[in-house]
Amino acid sequence: MATVRLWSDDEAEADPAVKAVFDDLRATRKSDFVNNFWRGLANDPVALKRTWESLKAIMVQPGALDPLTCELIYMAVSATNTCTYCIHSHTAAARQKGMTDAQYAHFLQIVGMAAQTNALVTAMQIPVDEAFQVSG
Amino acid sequence: MATVRLWSDDEAEADPAVKAVFDDLRATRKSDFVNNFWRGLANDPVALKRTWESLKAIMVQPGALDPLTCELIYMAVSATNTCTYCIHSHTAAARQKGMTDAQYAHFLQIVGMAAQTNALVTAMQIPVDEAFQVSG
Amino acid sequence: MATVRLWSDDEAEADPAVKAVFDDLRATRKSDFVNNFWRGLANDPVALKRTWESLKAIMVQPGALDPLTCELIYMAVSATNTCTYCIHSHTAAARQKGMTDAQYAHFLQIVGMAAQTNALVTAMQIPVDEAFQVSG
Amino acid sequence: MATVRLWSDDEAEADPAVKAVFDDLRATRKSDFVNNFWRGLANDPVALKRTWESLKAIMVQPGALDPLTCELIYMAVSATNTCTYCIHSHTAAARQKGMTDAQYAHFLQIVGMAAQTNALVTAMQIPVDEAFQVSG
Amino acid sequence: MATVRLWSDDEAEADPAVKAVFDDLRATRKSDFVNNFWRGLANDPVALKRTWESLKAIMVQPGALDPLTCELIYMAVSATNTCTYCIHSHTAAARQKGMTDAQYAHFLQIVGMAAQTNALVTAMQIPVDEAFQVSG
Amino acid sequence: MATVRLWSDDEAEADPAVKAVFDDLRATRKSDFVNNFWRGLANDPVALKRTWESLKAIMVQPGALDPLTCELIYMAVSATNTCTYCIHSHTAAARQKGMTDAQYAHFLQIVGMAAQTNALVTAMQIPVDEAFQVSG
Repeated sequence: MATVRLWSDDEAEADPAVKAVFDDLRATRKSDFVNNFWRGLANDPVALKRTWESLKAIMVQPGALDPLTCELIYMAVSATNTCTYCIHSHTAAARQKGMTDAQYAHFLQIVGMAAQTNALVTAMQIPVDEAFQVSG
Repeated sequence: MATVRLWSDDEAEADPAVKAVFDDLRATRKSDFVNNFWRGLANDPVALKRTWESLKAIMVQPGALDPLTCELIYMAVSATNTCTYCIHSHTAAARQKGMTDAQYAHFLQIVGMAAQTNALVTAMQIPVDEAFQVSG
Repeated sequence: MATVRLWSDDEAEADPAVKAVFDDLRATRKSDFVNNFWRGLANDPVALKRTWESLKAIMVQPGALDPLTCELIYMAVSATNTCTYCIHSHTAAARQKGMTDAQYAHFLQIVGMAAQTNALVTAMQIPVDEAFQVSG
Repeated sequence: MATVRLWSDDEAEADPAVKAVFDDLRATRKSDFVNNFWRGLANDPVALKRTWESLKAIMVQPGALDPLTCELIYMAVSATNTCTYCIHSHTAAARQKGMTDAQYAHFLQIVGMAAQTNALVTAMQIPVDEAFQVSG
Repeated sequence: MATVRLWSDDEAEADPAVKAVFDDLRATRKSDFVNNFWRGLANDPVALKRTWESLKAIMVQPGALDPLTCELIYMAVSATNTCTYCIHSHTAAARQKGMTDAQYAHFLQIVGMAAQTNALVTAMQIPVDEAFQVSG
Repeated sequence: MATVRLWSDDEAEADPAVKAVFDDLRATRKSDFVNNFWRGLANDPVALKRTWESLKAIMVQPGALDPLTCELIYMAVSATNTCTYCIHSHTAAARQKGMTDAQYAHFLQIVGMAAQTNALVTAMQIPVDEAFQVSG
């Protein structure tokens, strides 16, 4: 159970600030489904609006990376942070954006490999090579 | 300073098991440069071979995801695990594989956004929507 | 299900060392409720006593920070460590100590913002400004 | 060394979008000092603006929690995420906002205590008490 | 619910590559029980084989550390990564390998103590003593 | 640089509460060396005493696990928490307690393997087998 109330559609409909975000979210995603994250954030309409607008700018609107790659990066962060909810929601989103079983299997192997080498490097405290010390 | 000895080229040359991995690594990457991670792992030649072969299979040989996407996933895990070495080495690798400044900027925004929503979801203990509870 | 046995009140009553801690815990908190964490720790009465005495000294007895601020810091650590149990127990404790909905909403925004900037800073490996390099 | 270029004041001055954020940041903080985080984010002026506006809304403008409490929460998240930069910058900010040595000592004890009980609870997989399963 | 299909025994039996790993796993462990981790990994038979062979080499075959110590290290990493599944499976494995209640209680205290001092050290950004800066 | 002052021997000598802990630490360890962690904690003599007494009880006094195993568990937690200071200090302590190069190499492989399977399990959200759901 959440530590906050999850807003029903009726409650959202009755609050203009929340309704505006839910409406935009549904129109942008071309779907009536509003997942629990937004229903929890609705307790703070200002935060709801700010978070949705950031997410839309970064994950929905056209950017330098394609939509599936964006989801894979999101999934990688979420898995590493052990965020159960985010793993489920973004794996589902990646599938909707065309992730194949082979791509998901490859993704899983990379996440596991990175976690392993991260742990080895950290445990051995390997110093960064000078060759990598070049800023952008 | 590392907690293990970083093998010099001369030392690696003198140990057939280590030499074999360093040789394959150089041939595979078409570069003479062997970064510190492998020089630290060389203290355990069996682990060195196993790790390199796994990495080669997952990150170098053709797979379902293209090489740059692989690096972006690796970078996302490494940043979330705060692995300084891995962040530097894989950001450098991504640039070598063609990552543009615009793609890197987009990547950073996704990593930040995912970290933020991960934290919000976790702090509010949002339950997973039934719609996401569908196995592959 | 826990990996350890959770002690019932009857079991605790029958072990003088455990009983002493449960009695002090109930008297200190002015409540009969003993939550599962202590019932799990009871398997190691010495650790139970040490942990409760440390917690009492840090979180219950008057200190430089007021009780609600203490809980907010505890919640921030627990959310970042994705400790489901601790998030629930300390959010409940904060509400008991007077946390308003507005304060909780503000807390959530700070936790999300900090997670986001932490991730950005780490991914970009921003060096610490000299101005911050001043010890206490 | 960062993986991105840190913008100098001259460079920032020459880019209207970056200049606008740096100007607002200096005016809001009543200080000429712009720390490295913003100089790194300047490579993506849109992200720079969005991040600064979110931070200003959450950490600078009056909210339900007082400025020092906000910093203590930020510090708790940053310490738990082992974000060296953020620990330094927000500990410095907390001192500027009046954090005393006694308050900092108390903060450190809470962060340590929370990390310890988080680890114990997680290792024992303690189930959440029904009494805590009450949503907001 | 998992994000991948968990293979039944019948499905595994019908796929030679998966069957080979399940057979070796059962023979090596002298038990018919194949836990869910391997049933999920079975979706990628190449990864299944690589992961099982690494695990067998590191955790099953005789090495410099005895089997119970190996499990305790695995449990410590899993608890710190808040991996619920791994905490359960490796605590069970440790008990099978002879872990006593007293050893488990001691383990828990070390995990809690390490988490606490890790957090304190990180929050205070304690510099590494020169005496520790000696590589292997 | 630390966010707190590191106490010199002269300062510690002049404060009876700090001196008492430093004296006991030196006598217990049979060494004059007091590492930086304690010099930072000295700013809060009550916390210094509590932390040292807990550490002594858990890590120094005879317990169910032998001293080297204790250090290996501490190292595993510290590596997973990416605590640079703790990795260095406890790897040094493990060597002092007799850790061989072969044991350290084995330790590193377990830490890497656990991190990898933790990440795979979490990314796939593998449900805990009923067989593991047996409390202590």
